[in-house]
Amino acid sequence: MATVRLLTDDELAPEARSVFDDIRATYNTDYVNDFWRALANDPPTMRRTWLALKEAMGPGALEPKVKEMLYVAVSIAHGCEYCIHTHTAAARRKGMTDAEYGELLGIVGMAAQTNRLVQALGVPVDPVYRV
Amino acid sequence: MATVRLLTDDELAPEARSVFDDIRATYNTDYVNDFWRALANDPPTMRRTWLALKEAMGPGALEPKVKEMLYVAVSIAHGCEYCIHTHTAAARRKGMTDAEYGELLGIVGMAAQTNRLVQALGVPVDPVYRV
Amino acid sequence: MATVRLLTDDELAPEARSVFDDIRATYNTDYVNDFWRALANDPPTMRRTWLALKEAMGPGALEPKVKEMLYVAVSIAHGCEYCIHTHTAAARRKGMTDAEYGELLGIVGMAAQTNRLVQALGVPVDPVYRV
Amino acid sequence: MATVRLLTDDELAPEARSVFDDIRATYNTDYVNDFWRALANDPPTMRRTWLALKEAMGPGALEPKVKEMLYVAVSIAHGCEYCIHTHTAAARRKGMTDAEYGELLGIVGMAAQTNRLVQALGVPVDPVYRV
Amino acid sequence: MATVRLLTDDELAPEARSVFDDIRATYNTDYVNDFWRALANDPPTMRRTWLALKEAMGPGALEPKVKEMLYVAVSIAHGCEYCIHTHTAAARRKGMTDAEYGELLGIVGMAAQTNRLVQALGVPVDPVYRV
Amino acid sequence: MATVRLLTDDELAPEARSVFDDIRATYNTDYVNDFWRALANDPPTMRRTWLALKEAMGPGALEPKVKEMLYVAVSIAHGCEYCIHTHTAAARRKGMTDAEYGELLGIVGMAAQTNRLVQALGVPVDPVYRV
Repeated sequence: MATVRLLTDDELAPEARSVFDDIRATYNTDYVNDFWRALANDPPTMRRTWLALKEAMGPGALEPKVKEMLYVAVSIAHGCEYCIHTHTAAARRKGMTDAEYGELLGIVGMAAQTNRLVQALGVPVDPVYRV
Repeated sequence: MATVRLLTDDELAPEARSVFDDIRATYNTDYVNDFWRALANDPPTMRRTWLALKEAMGPGALEPKVKEMLYVAVSIAHGCEYCIHTHTAAARRKGMTDAEYGELLGIVGMAAQTNRLVQALGVPVDPVYRV
Repeated sequence: MATVRLLTDDELAPEARSVFDDIRATYNTDYVNDFWRALANDPPTMRRTWLALKEAMGPGALEPKVKEMLYVAVSIAHGCEYCIHTHTAAARRKGMTDAEYGELLGIVGMAAQTNRLVQALGVPVDPVYRV
Repeated sequence: MATVRLLTDDELAPEARSVFDDIRATYNTDYVNDFWRALANDPPTMRRTWLALKEAMGPGALEPKVKEMLYVAVSIAHGCEYCIHTHTAAARRKGMTDAEYGELLGIVGMAAQTNRLVQALGVPVDPVYRV
Repeated sequence: MATVRLLTDDELAPEARSVFDDIRATYNTDYVNDFWRALANDPPTMRRTWLALKEAMGPGALEPKVKEMLYVAVSIAHGCEYCIHTHTAAARRKGMTDAEYGELLGIVGMAAQTNRLVQALGVPVDPVYRV
Repeated sequence: MATVRLLTDDELAPEARSVFDDIRATYNTDYVNDFWRALANDPPTMRRTWLALKEAMGPGALEPKVKEMLYVAVSIAHGCEYCIHTHTAAARRKGMTDAEYGELLGIVGMAAQTNRLVQALGVPVDPVYRV
């Protein structure tokens, strides 16, 4: 349950409306995720977050599919159910296969395990890895 | 500082020694990370962890470089300094460019930001994303 | 879904009942949050937690509204949906405006982002910040 | 130890140099934190992060001191040693007293405790808190 | 809501079916948790996870009840609602009393509190605790 | 590096001094951990934390060794290096054997792995586990 109302298109302030327009144009779809309908209650944070997100997830050196898989990995480690669902769906739309998803799960699980083992043991970084 | 002693090759129990042999053969190097020298104090956990890690990070559908980048992403979200250093180094060895590393950082940062915004707002998963 | 039953007033042990009395007197309301009805299954932990909470959140140098906003910020970072909802509501009751809530969201999001970037990069604390 | 080199002023790319100029002008000091010297290795992420941070932490409804204290609270929950140090120092520069810092610690500690108790008990949000 | 379908017994691949057989034999029950029905979509990760879990949670130096309580403690700190529920139930089946559960809650809460206070204060490990 | 000075015995306020006396009497040792020397800068938070900790970790239904092991497990999941070191040392003083420590590590690692797998897959709690 949200702490704020999810705004309908009719309730958007002008600054939020123009972000919605850009989201729709960028993703080439009329559907806008409920995250934006919640964040639209604070247009400056929404605009700033959207512009940064669009830039970070836009065309670059990494494949769009890989970018979404990295997003999913971080979202799992932060326990964000909404983000896991929406970015897993986005990764699939961008080409992630079942086999790739299975490997992602395997890596996230092993990283979680060794992260905690290393922290439990307090191992300092090997001198050979110093930049 | 570690909670256990980092074992030298001479101090390894037979079960741990055979894991060291496999690590050296798998990575084709004589160097064994200090994590394993710490975990070698408990050979069963070390063997189990190594075999699972070798399988999860072994050849598959995803590029080795991408696998390491996913590992780095999770390690950052868990705040594991050791893991971040060693897997960032591994990703570079496997071909991660500076541009790709910059994009990884950008994605991890934006995911962290939107993960917390979504959790702050308590947005339920949009019905359209239900499997 | 809770791991324990939420106790009704009639089911409280005497030690838990006296904590309920103090909660009602402190907040000047008959309503007691379900968190306490769950924790009432273990009266010593409930009493200890309540007394410490009452002291930490009681009158002091910081405004009550700011105290609740700090509580919300921590709860978001820990991903505690219940705590986010109840303390966001409490912050509003104590005067947090929509604009202040928007700024809180913006700060939490940016802190999450830079926290993870700093950890990714492993930056040591600048010598000038040493106490 | 950082995963990248901390760049000196002489090593900055033009895009990073102009961000440094803005940081110095905004904070009215010649000193630039090592975080920016690390992030300067990826100018686009650095520029985007700086502009968003400047906006989120700039003048608004909340006092600058309170904004920094919220930043500290999130940084503690994420275990970011660097961020804790630099933002605790910033909060003090902006007027946080010892008494206020003590209350911040008390609130962060109690929030951490009750966050985990609530999650342990799995308490659903009380219907009265639904927006 | 799951990101994958929960597989029925009839939909299992042979590798997943043999893991189900081992789960049923190990726990001496026909009921298989939905976690495995989800993970069965990726048989290699499922098999690897099951075998490691069976070994880590199998007979050893610690009582089965204590092992489950440690599992619960970690799951609370990671905010995994599913894991908290299933392992709290398992700990009870293996003999955890109400008094022991109350003490577990108390310890998890105090550890969370002091963990964050220590991180807030940045206290280095006392030299006397060096191994 | 700490954000506050570690106070010597001579610098303690009376309220902090009396907590130090109680710590020394409770643990029957003259040594006081640096955590308390840091927290002594805010006597009310220090006193409140100490009294709650003494009660939660005092005699009860669980063995002192098990209580410390639960403390270690939570501290690992929160990535608190200081807490991991001091409570691992305390668990050893209270009888934790090398074999038990190895099992603790194994359980923490597997819990971390399955916690994240469950969250990745978004598995709802099985109806049979509802209280």
